[in-house]
Amino acid sequence: MSEYTITFIKNEQPKEKPDSDHLPFGKFFTDHMFIQDYSEEKGWHNPRIVPYQPLVIDPAAMIFHYGQTIFEGLKAYRTAEGNVQLFRPDKNMERLNRSNRRMCIPEVDEEFAIDAIKHLLHIDQEWVPSAPGTSLYIRPFIIATEPFLGVRPSKNYQFIVILSPVGAYYESGINPVKIAVENNYVRAVKGGTGEAKTAGNYASSLIAQEVADKEGYAQVLWLDGLEKKYIEEVGSMNVFFKVNGKVITPALNGSILEGVTRNSVIQMLKHWDIPVEERKISMEELYDHYINGELEEAFGSGTAAVISPIGELAWNNEHMIINDGKTGAISSKLYQTLTGIQYGTVKDPFNWVVKVK
Amino acid sequence: MSEYTITFIKNEQPKEKPDSDHLPFGKFFTDHMFIQDYSEEKGWHNPRIVPYQPLVIDPAAMIFHYGQTIFEGLKAYRTAEGNVQLFRPDKNMERLNRSNRRMCIPEVDEEFAIDAIKHLLHIDQEWVPSAPGTSLYIRPFIIATEPFLGVRPSKNYQFIVILSPVGAYYESGINPVKIAVENNYVRAVKGGTGEAKTAGNYASSLIAQEVADKEGYAQVLWLDGLEKKYIEEVGSMNVFFKVNGKVITPALNGSILEGVTRNSVIQMLKHWDIPVEERKISMEELYDHYINGELEEAFGSGTAAVISPIGELAWNNEHMIINDGKTGAISSKLYQTLTGIQYGTVKDPFNWVVKVK
Repeated sequence: MSEYTITFIKNEQPKEKPDSDHLPFGKFFTDHMFIQDYSEEKGWHNPRIVPYQPLVIDPAAMIFHYGQTIFEGLKAYRTAEGNVQLFRPDKNMERLNRSNRRMCIPEVDEEFAIDAIKHLLHIDQEWVPSAPGTSLYIRPFIIATEPFLGVRPSKNYQFIVILSPVGAYYESGINPVKIAVENNYVRAVKGGTGEAKTAGNYASSLIAQEVADKEGYAQVLWLDGLEKKYIEEVGSMNVFFKVNGKVITPALNGSILEGVTRNSVIQMLKHWDIPVEERKISMEELYDHYINGELEEAFGSGTAAVISPIGELAWNNEHMIINDGKTGAISSKLYQTLTGIQYGTVKDPFNWVVKVK
Repeated sequence: MSEYTITFIKNEQPKEKPDSDHLPFGKFFTDHMFIQDYSEEKGWHNPRIVPYQPLVIDPAAMIFHYGQTIFEGLKAYRTAEGNVQLFRPDKNMERLNRSNRRMCIPEVDEEFAIDAIKHLLHIDQEWVPSAPGTSLYIRPFIIATEPFLGVRPSKNYQFIVILSPVGAYYESGINPVKIAVENNYVRAVKGGTGEAKTAGNYASSLIAQEVADKEGYAQVLWLDGLEKKYIEEVGSMNVFFKVNGKVITPALNGSILEGVTRNSVIQMLKHWDIPVEERKISMEELYDHYINGELEEAFGSGTAAVISPIGELAWNNEHMIINDGKTGAISSKLYQTLTGIQYGTVKDPFNWVVKVK
């Protein structure tokens, strides 16, 4: 039996599947999960697919104290023909290992990880919903499990993949949202962990999100942690602005997460001969464009929502209403095209789609 | 039965206690642990002391994905008379709630938390070691347990306290260590979570620590994340410098953890009529003092090590040897006095000690 042989223990008590017309995000989980262990002696070993079940972890496990963990998020889509397919899983696994390196977690074999995900999807294939806009969200994550209270990298880890059938991320569909520019709290700074998909970045963001929520905003727009001047991300998405026919997005600077959807948006816009600039953008510059009538569209990009148009941006006392608060043409075309490729209804010019046999 | 009645389930299979002459830090745990649950409906409820055991947690629990968690660290000391006592537990519980507020975790009742810790210590009192320099390390922590993949504060938590008999934090005792000034990585920045005792800060620090370790340094000295110019902390300790007879420590600025030992050091120095300044200190200023022969001592302060003298500070290509690489008089006096108060051999002028009945 090779280190790559996945053991399978079937769930003999499968759950009832939730109503696929009213699926919340990330609340229901399928019948099985993937687990693999790491130890210094054996490296990554004992890959297995087992019934979805609670983890049994020592209370001194380092994940609970020092947050050494990373995760990924991608989706499996049901095509009209009934097949199941993935969107650029190689990009997610590349990033998973980049996150691992930053967080001192041993790297995984990216190809094997994709195979393991496909294997798990094959077993739980009936859980991939088929209602419009639904998908099966895939959450790979790694946690430090050594029971030890000293501050150093753990010697033991678990790599786990769980699956969750989901509806649209925003219940109201692709509708522009109101976003507040965050002036007090900071998500990440160069030299920190902003580039890594790690728990601490999200923990840090909760308080700003809570304040924004109370004031009626869907998300916050994060500014750079140094000067609180340059635009970084929106909530847990990357952000784009259409200005005078050009699309501008903050350049990857060490504190911005490199989104797979961000990368796909940039490639798609170039494919359409729409100029894209990756560079620093200050709120002042954006506001000037807005005042001059040059800010045509704004949207976030991410795996969960794909494209999330921004209808209003609140900055200090200014309320910038973008494109009359409506979804713009480019936002809409990107959404239709990317989701079309994901669900197999639109031609895939980049070979982004990976079929699950 | 009130919400403050602690249920007790005795461990009928107590473990053998480790040799107290060779205790590592944070590796052995006692026979019991404290757990309390939180739900929106019930608030904090069901406090219980149970046999030390693994946690059984859904793999979708938010702690594993978004790192919503905080912790504390304090110690119980065995006196010459055989009694057990705590050092300023009220300060730890105050900070626990400050951390909770930053991380959107519901606050705990501080007095009840101290009572619960005392109760647990009473049950596991035989685990408080008596060899010189040993103690029982107390680790309270709170984790988000709701199984949900959306990014928002959890609706469920567990407050847990585990105990670990420990030797000295540095195996070689109070001996000056070599510290490297960190120029690439950043621990925390104003607006982030540096003030909170939360997992992400420690996860973020691992990579710099690993590099320093390979180069022969015990810890890194963190600079501010904005200009990489001002001194913040050393490893997971606060830092002090004696310059021209005065003691200087970085002022609390929003990204520095407010250490209980830091506070105790400042109070003790004032009690001794030694001038203390809490203010910004740049590496350039420190280097100038060093070159002028005015840098007399440097030391870190923290619960684990109490006082950790710094014998060498490496900054770019400069190797600053402090006090001939030896433990300074003030470092030594602080260590003797603070540990003396903790173990009950030195008069406690501030009523810092709390006896466990």
